[in-house]
Amino acid sequence: MQYYVDGFRPGDPDLKPAAPGRAPTLGRKDLPEKVDVLIAGCGPAGLCLAAQLSQFPDIHTMIVEPKPGPIEKGQADGVNVRSMEMFQAFGFAEKVKREAYWVNQTNFWMPDPKNPDHIARVGRQQDVADDQSEMPHTLMNQARIHELFLDVMRKSPARLDPDYGLAVQTLEIDTTTDDHPVTVTLERADGTTTTVRANYVVGADGARSNVRKAIGGKLHGDAAHQAWGVMDILANSDFPDLRMKNLITSAKEGNLLILPREGGYLFRMYVELDKLNPDERVAARNLTVDHMIAAANRIMKPYSIDVKEVVWWSVYEIGHRLTDKFDDVPEGETATRMPRVFTMGDACHTHSPKAGQGMNVSMGDAFNLGWKLAQVLGGRSDPSLLHSYTEERRTEAKRLVDTDHEWARIMSAPLTPGELDGSEMPRFQKHFVANLEFTGGLAVRYDPSPIVADGAQQALATGLPLGKRFHSAPVVRMADAMEMQLGHVAEADGRWRIYAFAGKDDSSAPGSRIHALADWLENDPASPVRRYTRTGEDIDAVIDVRAVFQQDFRDLDYEDMPSLLKPAKGTFGLRDFEKVFCVDHKNGHDIYDMRGIDRAQGCMVVVRPDQYVAHILPLDATGELAEFFAGFLLP
Amino acid sequence: MQYYVDGFRPGDPDLKPAAPGRAPTLGRKDLPEKVDVLIAGCGPAGLCLAAQLSQFPDIHTMIVEPKPGPIEKGQADGVNVRSMEMFQAFGFAEKVKREAYWVNQTNFWMPDPKNPDHIARVGRQQDVADDQSEMPHTLMNQARIHELFLDVMRKSPARLDPDYGLAVQTLEIDTTTDDHPVTVTLERADGTTTTVRANYVVGADGARSNVRKAIGGKLHGDAAHQAWGVMDILANSDFPDLRMKNLITSAKEGNLLILPREGGYLFRMYVELDKLNPDERVAARNLTVDHMIAAANRIMKPYSIDVKEVVWWSVYEIGHRLTDKFDDVPEGETATRMPRVFTMGDACHTHSPKAGQGMNVSMGDAFNLGWKLAQVLGGRSDPSLLHSYTEERRTEAKRLVDTDHEWARIMSAPLTPGELDGSEMPRFQKHFVANLEFTGGLAVRYDPSPIVADGAQQALATGLPLGKRFHSAPVVRMADAMEMQLGHVAEADGRWRIYAFAGKDDSSAPGSRIHALADWLENDPASPVRRYTRTGEDIDAVIDVRAVFQQDFRDLDYEDMPSLLKPAKGTFGLRDFEKVFCVDHKNGHDIYDMRGIDRAQGCMVVVRPDQYVAHILPLDATGELAEFFAGFLLP
Ligand SMILES: Cc1cc2nc3c(=O)[nH]c(=O)nc-3n(C[C@H](O)[C@H](O)[C@H](O)COP(=O)(O)OP(=O)(O)OC[C@H]3O[C@@H](n4cnc5c(N)ncnc54)[C@H](O)[C@@H]3O)c2cc1C
Ligand SMILES: Cc1cc2nc3c(=O)[nH]c(=O)nc-3n(C[C@H](O)[C@H](O)[C@H](O)COP(=O)(O)OP(=O)(O)OC[C@H]3O[C@@H](n4cnc5c(N)ncnc54)[C@H](O)[C@@H]3O)c2cc1C
Repeated sequence: MQYYVDGFRPGDPDLKPAAPGRAPTLGRKDLPEKVDVLIAGCGPAGLCLAAQLSQFPDIHTMIVEPKPGPIEKGQADGVNVRSMEMFQAFGFAEKVKREAYWVNQTNFWMPDPKNPDHIARVGRQQDVADDQSEMPHTLMNQARIHELFLDVMRKSPARLDPDYGLAVQTLEIDTTTDDHPVTVTLERADGTTTTVRANYVVGADGARSNVRKAIGGKLHGDAAHQAWGVMDILANSDFPDLRMKNLITSAKEGNLLILPREGGYLFRMYVELDKLNPDERVAARNLTVDHMIAAANRIMKPYSIDVKEVVWWSVYEIGHRLTDKFDDVPEGETATRMPRVFTMGDACHTHSPKAGQGMNVSMGDAFNLGWKLAQVLGGRSDPSLLHSYTEERRTEAKRLVDTDHEWARIMSAPLTPGELDGSEMPRFQKHFVANLEFTGGLAVRYDPSPIVADGAQQALATGLPLGKRFHSAPVVRMADAMEMQLGHVAEADGRWRIYAFAGKDDSSAPGSRIHALADWLENDPASPVRRYTRTGEDIDAVIDVRAVFQQDFRDLDYEDMPSLLKPAKGTFGLRDFEKVFCVDHKNGHDIYDMRGIDRAQGCMVVVRPDQYVAHILPLDATGELAEFFAGFLLP
Repeated sequence: MQYYVDGFRPGDPDLKPAAPGRAPTLGRKDLPEKVDVLIAGCGPAGLCLAAQLSQFPDIHTMIVEPKPGPIEKGQADGVNVRSMEMFQAFGFAEKVKREAYWVNQTNFWMPDPKNPDHIARVGRQQDVADDQSEMPHTLMNQARIHELFLDVMRKSPARLDPDYGLAVQTLEIDTTTDDHPVTVTLERADGTTTTVRANYVVGADGARSNVRKAIGGKLHGDAAHQAWGVMDILANSDFPDLRMKNLITSAKEGNLLILPREGGYLFRMYVELDKLNPDERVAARNLTVDHMIAAANRIMKPYSIDVKEVVWWSVYEIGHRLTDKFDDVPEGETATRMPRVFTMGDACHTHSPKAGQGMNVSMGDAFNLGWKLAQVLGGRSDPSLLHSYTEERRTEAKRLVDTDHEWARIMSAPLTPGELDGSEMPRFQKHFVANLEFTGGLAVRYDPSPIVADGAQQALATGLPLGKRFHSAPVVRMADAMEMQLGHVAEADGRWRIYAFAGKDDSSAPGSRIHALADWLENDPASPVRRYTRTGEDIDAVIDVRAVFQQDFRDLDYEDMPSLLKPAKGTFGLRDFEKVFCVDHKNGHDIYDMRGIDRAQGCMVVVRPDQYVAHILPLDATGELAEFFAGFLLP
């Protein structure tokens, strides 16, 4: 963690210096007339975007929420490894790791072949495969995740707080101007309204999104006509695996999911309830928490639960829905019109909660959109970059909805004889294993586009697939022999990163390929580092270059390092010592082996601000590198 | 981390429910007339004790500090691994790990044999030996450590804040009563005074301690007649190891210590300045930060520093001083009189700051005294337990002063020819290596006493020396397959712990030795768990029993576990699933091998609330176990 570069400040290092004129706004009465970005909704999507934008001192963001304050419990609880990796970039992964439940194992229970009225454990599965991520899969209530984002916002340069008690009612877009073209009507709890003008509006206002409606978006999809219940409870049980995640199938009473939760006592159950008739709404059944508890006790026989406190519960019907477009530009007009309004999260796609994806995918939307908005608002990219949001995220959402569909189908089909007599691995388990990468949030792969190179040389880094998230691995920081994750240098700061992996025997002596690349990046007029970094900015303000060497840290010499790898930064021009890394020889974690990096030649890996691999090139492919950045950055 | 046992609470789990009637007191005008414990001084010692006592809802603590508020910078910065282990118990080790500088390596620089006017690197040393502790050695400014303790206090059941602007002037002890026998005179900044009566007073009021003076304590020791300077700076340098800890000896200009600090840019230098005449005070020399910078530049030739910001600096003279007694009971009266007033930290011992021990030893004092005070105030131990504080901690302080003395002697002796021509390992490095356990805070070993057993069977756990801190090792928690440190179950909650290591093949089937021990502990009238746990308290409120098995977590059955290992707790009688652990087979960390635990027989390891090993016994030595606890606990 780096701080004090502009001088010592006492206190919490996460509390960043406020941008000029910024002060906490919680509960303010006077609303601004114009903002850069107006976000509707304080769910995980809205808060993640707000946390991201609040890092930029020049961007004015407003986030509105009809509720009078933060929620306290309920809703989603699954944080997959990909979201944990993103939390690391926001600085609160350690907090979640400490507080949350870790899903280490998932167990599978089926009717006991000897006594099908009883369930028996038939399988166990490690939940996060080895080296799938350096992060655990965790479970923690959504309200607490909200708080952690709110904390980031409050401590950011923008000192951003939500404006509670305000709902987006509707909005209008003036396509003839670029000066705050979206006029948003906000409604107060008492029904009165006010307006605010924004350059961009983002609807993170949930499944009934008014923003979606205002831009004519429609959710398409279907329902499974199946009622489910979810409850967060404090309870005792003789069920032996109460602190593991369990997928339970009973012979006749339906399915049950047990998810242990933060704090060691709380857990969540998803309980299969009644089949619904076509056209029937779940509300019509008047299902209560008592129905749920009774159903759970029937499903988990011979075990039972004795509920002491119901913290939260809800009954719902599975549905899978998706909007055509995640922004306001009609199909066919993308060449001539730039997006001004976006939807994220449940506002544009909904799926079954049991897959635990809702919160994760919503935050993934926000992390994708955040840096793009910042880059366009900062004048660093053409607004056409914003088209890529709907392109990239709708594809992912579609995949999610499809997978979810399949999962629901698999879950609801009757058990086969092989499953019932125990001769066959239950399909839950099969499907679960096959989908580990997907549920971890790691299957996301963006297609080639101006921000994901086409002609990349994947062979130079076979373990870092282009368009997928940069998969971190252990390294040792040269300057202080710190054993750490290379991926953790990436903060949620909107910067691009180039990881330059040195070839064999390259110790950065003058004339070596690493040295030459760094010198070119620092000095050549064609270098993207030179072209896109503005006067007065730190040399790594736009593109942050880091190098990794194959030698032990003891065998490298700081004096040999090119000046780009020991840059002078901040008010005082202090040298940054955190740009150079080595293979972790001591612990035998060789990042070259782990990520399939070409030992002989080395390579450059270009990584987007949202941590996705954008390009892979030989160390001397300076022309191609320049060309790639010229595809979306403005000088 | 366990929470919600008494029901769900929204928000930060570290914010514990307030004890009845407790609310934040910061800035209060009305002081209490009587308190259980009055602590003088908000340094690391006072705050650590306050943080500890604030965990007990029934104890009323007051902590006074003459300064108007918390310090913002300066003073000590070394946090050794032992202190990090203690921070883990207080719940903020993760924060420190994230924010602080990690001392991974220490480098040694000596006059270059080829050119003695220049220094050259002659050695490197891993700073924390492998498996010395699961924690790193860190550097972070003392003010930030203070804040972390203040945060624990504020969020504790006692909602404790310091009363700033108040100094202990003097105190009087009425030896004829047990009802708040110490009357303390407090002085406000304006010179006016007030009094408060306390059951116990703890002087953590630094080297000029008024509390020490009030109980007639005198610091004995000597000065080295050597001026040193210390400065925290933001600076550039061509010195290549700026982000490593360095011990530098120049041929003629003296010694220099470089300690990199939190945030990646700041660092501290200790600079040897002038020799003083006997009887001369360092102040007389009028040494400034410019002298220090100039001296540093002379010592580190051919390198130099270019200082951009001096954050904090100080000039001091090395001294080693120790008081005879750390409490108010005169030597010879311990049989008849119980301590009422204590001193801790710099108030009773001072040493050279360069060894980085001041803050650590002071907090060690507090952690030793805290649980004892809590136990006596809670009526769980006879007040004679309090004698052990001065016995245990003065021995340690003496050892520290002696070691420090030797270090100073070694530092100041002229270089030998072998050192100068590079044929001999510099004595700094030799001494440094020999003292790694000591500087890590791990050499502390308490002598046999009622709270450290004499007849313990060390052979059953050779790697857990009696009287030394319980050395943690990795295990897997059975209930959720969590890979974790066994030592991290110990929180700073004043509880005793028994780790029962199962013998070979013992899977806790009814009748096995582990099962029999647990049943005896839970049910036998002679069991210390039964004798000392009060009606209405959780079964683990006084003695917390955990079991470790040699099997894989998949090969154990919760149904076989004795009820003591799945106890019902809290308002609802919820089952606690965190009492059973297994060997970490997957990662090949076998706690039995790592800590020399007898595989065939297993054993019990009794650990004090401050994490020191108190007893080691065979699993069936129930009589000896009962006898041990009867030596200091009251039914
Ligand atoms: C009752 C409920 C139960 C759920 N249970 C589960 C579960 O068990 N498991 C699971 O994985 N997921 C569950 N989900 C879904 C999960 O919470 C979402 O997938 C996730 O929160 C999506 O995040 P989001 O930010 O897109 O939307 P949301 O979290 O829905 O946030 C939308 C926010 O927008 C606000 N809003 C609404 N209208 C407006 C407006 N006009 N203007 C401004 N703001 C507005 C809302 O008050 C809300 O705060 C549940 C959701 C709900 C609502
Ligand atoms: C100026 C200075 C520089 C130091 N530099 C270093 C260093 O470079 N490296 C290092 O390792 N250590 C250094 N130390 C020592 C290190 O800070 C101490 O060893 C450590 O803080 C000891 O903790 P303590 O709680 O015992 O005492 P302190 O930290 O000294 O705290 C004592 C507290 O008591 C308060 N107090 C004083 N009088 C009274 C009174 N009458 N009533 C109530 N409260 C009172 C003081 O204001 C102070 O807050 C330095 C100490 C000082 C004072």
